[in-house]
Amino acid sequence: MDCNTPTDLVFSFRGFSKRGGCTGPHADGWGLAFYEGRAARLFLDPGACAASPLAEFFKHTPVKTLQAVAHIRKKTRGHVKLANTHPFQRELWGRHWVFAHNGTVRDADALKLGRFQPVGTTDSEHAFCSLLESLRASFRTAPERPEALWEALAHEAGRIARRGTFNFVMGNGEYLFARCDTRLCHIVRRYPFGRATLKDDDVTIDFGAVTTARDRVAVIATTPLTVDETWTHGDPATLWVFKRGRLVATLASGEPIARKTPRHLRARPAP
Amino acid sequence: MDCNTPTDLVFSFRGFSKRGGCTGPHADGWGLAFYEGRAARLFLDPGACAASPLAEFFKHTPVKTLQAVAHIRKKTRGHVKLANTHPFQRELWGRHWVFAHNGTVRDADALKLGRFQPVGTTDSEHAFCSLLESLRASFRTAPERPEALWEALAHEAGRIARRGTFNFVMGNGEYLFARCDTRLCHIVRRYPFGRATLKDDDVTIDFGAVTTARDRVAVIATTPLTVDETWTHGDPATLWVFKRGRLVATLASGEPIARKTPRHLRARPAP
Repeated sequence: MDCNTPTDLVFSFRGFSKRGGCTGPHADGWGLAFYEGRAARLFLDPGACAASPLAEFFKHTPVKTLQAVAHIRKKTRGHVKLANTHPFQRELWGRHWVFAHNGTVRDADALKLGRFQPVGTTDSEHAFCSLLESLRASFRTAPERPEALWEALAHEAGRIARRGTFNFVMGNGEYLFARCDTRLCHIVRRYPFGRATLKDDDVTIDFGAVTTARDRVAVIATTPLTVDETWTHGDPATLWVFKRGRLVATLASGEPIARKTPRHLRARPAP
Repeated sequence: MDCNTPTDLVFSFRGFSKRGGCTGPHADGWGLAFYEGRAARLFLDPGACAASPLAEFFKHTPVKTLQAVAHIRKKTRGHVKLANTHPFQRELWGRHWVFAHNGTVRDADALKLGRFQPVGTTDSEHAFCSLLESLRASFRTAPERPEALWEALAHEAGRIARRGTFNFVMGNGEYLFARCDTRLCHIVRRYPFGRATLKDDDVTIDFGAVTTARDRVAVIATTPLTVDETWTHGDPATLWVFKRGRLVATLASGEPIARKTPRHLRARPAP
């Protein structure tokens, strides 16, 4: 979630959390990150979200924020444990970055690392560390021209995506980056606000009653969280950039067709 | 807290949390870190601990761990906000390090940084980043001889402590480091376990009823948390190293007398 006015996640989280072992099979840990400026606070739990006392706490305790990242895990690489629980967090250029991945990156261990070392054993954290290292190596400090950062990120993410499926959401408190590889969708809620009904729980909300005319809230998810709103589905190999609830850029990020070709048929990249 | 068997923090946290705005003035944010192997999960809250719904949650939800770090803040440098809330966390050598500070380090901005940049504006986070950078610069990977790490840490902490008051607790999941500058105490609870009564709340526990003969739990705090146990007070400028509930080393860390001399009377260090 990325927005221009402090907003809580309670409505979306109610439906989302049910996918963590109830309406969905993602029962191998979950996490929530809330930004306040450049700092994020994470709440991680290695158990099933649908049965978690901490998740229950957040369903009833609104935390207002301009940016939040939530993840429920269905493990493919790495055991169920805290070190393997998304979102992952690192500091770069004096701000926190958080990262949540959907998919599997093959041979992630071969991705180049540097300053950031994985704590756990997932392909996801390894890919995140590699992604941040490539940004750090490209820019000594945060680039003044934000487009330079977006382009570098789209390029590096496309490189990693050659190894598998690399849908992700990555926040840094200023921008929310969302890469669609195979599946990702978003909605920007704004004036005039309507009603929405969760797909995974019997809950309807009238956003008009809890918002003002200038509010803007973007929600990004693997699949739509509501049944009565129009979500925009991402094209394969694109990177969305959100800022304060607005989609500010859509970049190409890798080659969607070539990398679906089996490895032995693929042309070797130029050295 | 550092122990050899998974232990929850509920008893100590009950008393400790009251100091965060009720029996003590430390109402400017609080945080809890729990380790699981090399990974830590932090729970941060920029408000007063004594009035926090999240703190209430942890008073009733036991989280078992071998190492935990808790902090309640009374601000001296930096506003009340998430980015300034202890414990701070960074990754080094593929494990999380968490850090909580008591005291004030003067001119912390002048401390040399490198790979780790502060997200907030506290002297504490700046000192932590500088401390980790000195370890990173001294050892490319975690040193094989743990004493080398302890000595480097004691030395660097002593260097930083010349600028003010530098009581801290720092964990990395394997060791818990506790530096006494002006005030720090600890207790190692082990067989035969007795009863203990909190100083800050009307609660008594019989540890004998909830432990086995091989359990060992070290608790470190600025001032004793209980009234009917014997706590060991630290000597100024020493670093305690705990591992699995055992005090494994006590190192000298700086010069306790010289640096209490007013700056204008102090001999200049050799260039």
